[in-house]
Amino acid sequence: MATHSLFLLPGDGIGTEIMVEVEKLIAWTNAEGLTDFSTDTGLAGGAAFDAHGVAITDEDVAKAKAADAVIFGAVGGPKWDNVPYEHRPEAALLRLRKELAVFANLRPAICYPALAEASSLKKELVEGLDILIVRELTGGVYFGEPKTITDLGNGQKRAVDTQVYETYEIDRIARVAFDLARTRGGKVHSADKKNVMKSGVLWDEVVKTVAKDYADVELHHILADNAAMQLVRTPKQFDVMVTDNLFGDILSDVAAMLTGSLGMLPSASLGAPDPVTGKRKAFYEPVHGSAPDIAGKGIANPIAMIASYAMALRYSFNMIELANQVEGAIAAVLDDGLRTGDIAQPNCKTVGTEEMGAAILAKL
Amino acid sequence: MATHSLFLLPGDGIGTEIMVEVEKLIAWTNAEGLTDFSTDTGLAGGAAFDAHGVAITDEDVAKAKAADAVIFGAVGGPKWDNVPYEHRPEAALLRLRKELAVFANLRPAICYPALAEASSLKKELVEGLDILIVRELTGGVYFGEPKTITDLGNGQKRAVDTQVYETYEIDRIARVAFDLARTRGGKVHSADKKNVMKSGVLWDEVVKTVAKDYADVELHHILADNAAMQLVRTPKQFDVMVTDNLFGDILSDVAAMLTGSLGMLPSASLGAPDPVTGKRKAFYEPVHGSAPDIAGKGIANPIAMIASYAMALRYSFNMIELANQVEGAIAAVLDDGLRTGDIAQPNCKTVGTEEMGAAILAKL
Ligand SMILES: CC(C)[C@H](C(=O)O)[C@@H](O)C(=O)O
Ligand SMILES: CC(C)[C@H](C(=O)O)[C@@H](O)C(=O)O
Repeated sequence: MATHSLFLLPGDGIGTEIMVEVEKLIAWTNAEGLTDFSTDTGLAGGAAFDAHGVAITDEDVAKAKAADAVIFGAVGGPKWDNVPYEHRPEAALLRLRKELAVFANLRPAICYPALAEASSLKKELVEGLDILIVRELTGGVYFGEPKTITDLGNGQKRAVDTQVYETYEIDRIARVAFDLARTRGGKVHSADKKNVMKSGVLWDEVVKTVAKDYADVELHHILADNAAMQLVRTPKQFDVMVTDNLFGDILSDVAAMLTGSLGMLPSASLGAPDPVTGKRKAFYEPVHGSAPDIAGKGIANPIAMIASYAMALRYSFNMIELANQVEGAIAAVLDDGLRTGDIAQPNCKTVGTEEMGAAILAKL
Repeated sequence: MATHSLFLLPGDGIGTEIMVEVEKLIAWTNAEGLTDFSTDTGLAGGAAFDAHGVAITDEDVAKAKAADAVIFGAVGGPKWDNVPYEHRPEAALLRLRKELAVFANLRPAICYPALAEASSLKKELVEGLDILIVRELTGGVYFGEPKTITDLGNGQKRAVDTQVYETYEIDRIARVAFDLARTRGGKVHSADKKNVMKSGVLWDEVVKTVAKDYADVELHHILADNAAMQLVRTPKQFDVMVTDNLFGDILSDVAAMLTGSLGMLPSASLGAPDPVTGKRKAFYEPVHGSAPDIAGKGIANPIAMIASYAMALRYSFNMIELANQVEGAIAAVLDDGLRTGDIAQPNCKTVGTEEMGAAILAKL
């Protein structure tokens, strides 16, 4: 029996194409005796809706919970724009996050040296950029109740969403950020809107309390709107940024876009360590979406997906060396001048999904 | 008796310094017979707290309501970081927005040709940029109830903020955006998080209904996180962007930062036209803050403040020609190579607040 289990959810659009490259990588690391993973594959998003009328089945959620790590592609596409709200593709993602309780979403925004030119920002501002956004993922306005639309009559409706945070939720995500900062640049920016939101007031209060346990880490408070600005102005001032679910959604996308490497960026979503085994539930996915416009053409960039697998090796299985090797292989093919269409550059060779996957594998 | 009344609220920090330059401009347009403004000045933010123990007095709120237009500087500073929450400097701004019911916040993000180099983005991406963010300003999570922090015992607290939107609030801000798009590029992007928030679902539904009355305007839906990304990637794809209070706060700051001209950008906040007189309550302020770090040094950039006065001429008094002249004078001094410290450039002359104000006046 395999030592560890991976549950693969390729999803929709390019999700299925880029997952194929990860499957090849898993087969290879297994064959080399570097890993001993069993894999199983489920349906999520539009694919699940087409097959079962829901964004994800209870069986697949159960499998995701039972697995040592979930590797997720991407969901959504115009085909499912008009499915009932509760079955829209994104519902799969939200349900998995909540049921796996993976509250800590790690989104590294790294500028690959070979791609610094590809950023819309001036090269000197992003070259060597290495920011880690730590986004709270299972609370806030994404899940707070009430979350309703009420018909008031007279053609008027009222929509309500609720942002809720409790002390323990902020405490645990802050600790993740401080712990990670210790292994990096030793600096945390905590972003909220405490000048307007009570959840921001509590956020700041709890983060400052947690900071007392991390005297070696520098803590800066920053308003979320200013954080967005500063990311655009001088991104290299940041090391780790911790923020809530909604601000994290936006700020991590800004950070990702700065790097010029959106198709390159992975993410990890981690739960709390199990009190007995110490294991964390974990969910790995690329930052980019399902890109329906280029799906099925074999031209999607598999790097973010492969880098997500590397994150799984690192965070779920503590296979640091192998994770470094996979990441090194990605950097090496870029240095060789291989590019997928999304990152095409003059004097570089543009290749398809399969060729890129194969080139990375060949480096290993 | 003067024909129109302006109520000036310089606020804190550089707010008081840059307002002086506007006062000189008002005195001049009055003296030339171009305007007939009476002015009165009040206290807001930390200045009001120091004098009266509140962020703004009821008397000053009443004066703001009675005036034809309010010209606001900026509020806040470290001195007031620990005043009671309800008296923090920002409370003045939030109270004025709410009581004046200025629901439509217009934030132009224009890249002055002379400053295209100053952007952190590549010049070709921002040269000629002209985006108008139309932000809903009196609803959403800024004002929704409940807005509380509850002590749960055991060291746990729960913070709640509530995002609420009703149909009429979305309808009226959408109409402002569509009306303005007609006078510009004819394109509206509506940004929300309808994939996660019920208020986003209602937002999108109402905007699409309003769009039926504007067949000549192109409407695009965009998710708020993607909007933030796309602003950084290819900002010139946008003309008018309409969005809610919180997303508008962040997205307008990103848009402003793209231009490299943060110290240059004004904003207007408008109420509904009075059913009898047709007049709108109106509130004009620079997009930048009170910059306590450079306050009192006479080096602050007065251009955003002066441009806010130009917006008042345009939107509150329909003095389009004079507004154009003031804006033209700003562009002309920039073309002449005058710069304040925040926008200093090689081969340009760096001047102080007063000198910049005088140079603009001299052009008129
Ligand atoms: C697809 C969507 C529900 C999701 C989110 O808003 O969290 C996405 O934008 C993300 O950042 O993972
Ligand atoms: C000062 C603050 C309350 C305000 C806001 O959040 O609206 C500011 O950021 C703005 O954008 O005008």
